[in-house]
Amino acid sequence: MFEPRDPDFEARVRASFARQHLMQTIGAEMTAVRPGEVELTLPFRDDLTQQHGFLHAAVVTAIADSASGYAAFTLMAADRDVLSVEFKVNLLAPAAGERFIATGRVLRPGRTLTVCAAEVHAEHSGQRKLIAAMQATMMALEPIHDQPL
Amino acid sequence: MFEPRDPDFEARVRASFARQHLMQTIGAEMTAVRPGEVELTLPFRDDLTQQHGFLHAAVVTAIADSASGYAAFTLMAADRDVLSVEFKVNLLAPAAGERFIATGRVLRPGRTLTVCAAEVHAEHSGQRKLIAAMQATMMALEPIHDQPL
Amino acid sequence: MFEPRDPDFEARVRASFARQHLMQTIGAEMTAVRPGEVELTLPFRDDLTQQHGFLHAAVVTAIADSASGYAAFTLMAADRDVLSVEFKVNLLAPAAGERFIATGRVLRPGRTLTVCAAEVHAEHSGQRKLIAAMQATMMALEPIHDQPL
Amino acid sequence: MFEPRDPDFEARVRASFARQHLMQTIGAEMTAVRPGEVELTLPFRDDLTQQHGFLHAAVVTAIADSASGYAAFTLMAADRDVLSVEFKVNLLAPAAGERFIATGRVLRPGRTLTVCAAEVHAEHSGQRKLIAAMQATMMALEPIHDQPL
Repeated sequence: MFEPRDPDFEARVRASFARQHLMQTIGAEMTAVRPGEVELTLPFRDDLTQQHGFLHAAVVTAIADSASGYAAFTLMAADRDVLSVEFKVNLLAPAAGERFIATGRVLRPGRTLTVCAAEVHAEHSGQRKLIAAMQATMMALEPIHDQPL
Repeated sequence: MFEPRDPDFEARVRASFARQHLMQTIGAEMTAVRPGEVELTLPFRDDLTQQHGFLHAAVVTAIADSASGYAAFTLMAADRDVLSVEFKVNLLAPAAGERFIATGRVLRPGRTLTVCAAEVHAEHSGQRKLIAAMQATMMALEPIHDQPL
Repeated sequence: MFEPRDPDFEARVRASFARQHLMQTIGAEMTAVRPGEVELTLPFRDDLTQQHGFLHAAVVTAIADSASGYAAFTLMAADRDVLSVEFKVNLLAPAAGERFIATGRVLRPGRTLTVCAAEVHAEHSGQRKLIAAMQATMMALEPIHDQPL
Repeated sequence: MFEPRDPDFEARVRASFARQHLMQTIGAEMTAVRPGEVELTLPFRDDLTQQHGFLHAAVVTAIADSASGYAAFTLMAADRDVLSVEFKVNLLAPAAGERFIATGRVLRPGRTLTVCAAEVHAEHSGQRKLIAAMQATMMALEPIHDQPL
């Protein structure tokens, strides 16, 4: 559906993801990269929970944000960088499960701003349930840029 | 400004925060609790960064969300629990600094829903800079409740 | 996909919509009602424009909000009322066209809160273009209720 | 607090507002313009209501969005135009009253993006009540620009 400007987008996306230390810290993996769409997968871990033992909303948000940002990044020119401008998340059900899958996709690519949507599903005993929905705005930055907005 | 229903709100808030494993994992501390307002402080750590070495947007969001949720929780009845329904974050500047301070405050308390705002400041060489603003909806839950919405 | 609790949901939805004076003022019509989904259609009018002659973002928001709220309302019990708790809109392209179609659908129904998504398309010379995306939280209210949250 | 780039910002803001036909249609007036802050006032009108006779959430949003956009516009260079990228609104109480006052202020100005917050108060029998809070992202556009993002 989308035509990437950079044919090597996948290598570029994966290299940037590998530099996000937080993703390693929480144990997220990039399980799919397509033009305008990225999927991240995170196994449950007890040290990422909130007070009831479910995955913390912020961890659900972390994988939704990174999936959205990298979905936008797949369509950017090779010399750009990507930055989250803002996002909004609705938490639809408790984040209970063995694995969590965040799928970010581009709704509207742009030269400067790209709007994305992401869904997070929980896998529990072989069943998938939608637990969160995000709408996000991402920005393409020139490589060295100390004034992000 | 707000009158808490539960005079022991601070102990209740701190006990719940202590059960959020994610907050320990990232190293956040609860540095102030007042009726309708909670402050969290997080020292910078390299394992919480995004691809440019700044604090990841999701970690900024984590402390803003928890500060908002516990700000709402200060005003809830003693037998309630708190859940994040949704939040929206604008990232205003790169999260660069030695420490990050999230201040959540109640805009409008309610029997079921409480609306909060949070700000996150970065402390860098003794100066504070606003780096994120959140608007969030929190929900009061009855103690045992498997259907959050 | 969704099973309405009230078999007469369509009549109830259309009667409530007819009482929204704003919808008559701006000329919006309810062009489809299904369980969990509502479509509104609005012809362009010059008195609804912003400074460049496009439909004002608030009018785009008006039809997205009403489509979302009534989508939630289709699944509520017969004695409930519906209220917008919050919504977030991304404006994806200038609202240029002869007609605007807002489609609201339920992402997650709930006893108290229902989360919806809406899209607004512009029709221009026979072509449809996505111009806005909304994510919204709706609340079921008991019939007489002066304390909405 | 903010230093406008264009000393004639007020005339520029008022001239643009006068071209927003929707603002005339709903009867909104610009009652204050300061660097980084704009106030709009709207008298109640029955043709702007939702199904319970309160001001429709979309009209509350309309004045919050315009107040935010013009708050951002006060700080932009003289040859720029302003566009709403996205906004999020929490509706805190029923919009009941004789007059509604929206105050938009800049949280963070930027070369391309400006982040704003707005509050809407209802005036009812001489008392003011906070009824809505908005967080919004505004964009500075070059004068002729058909690709807004």
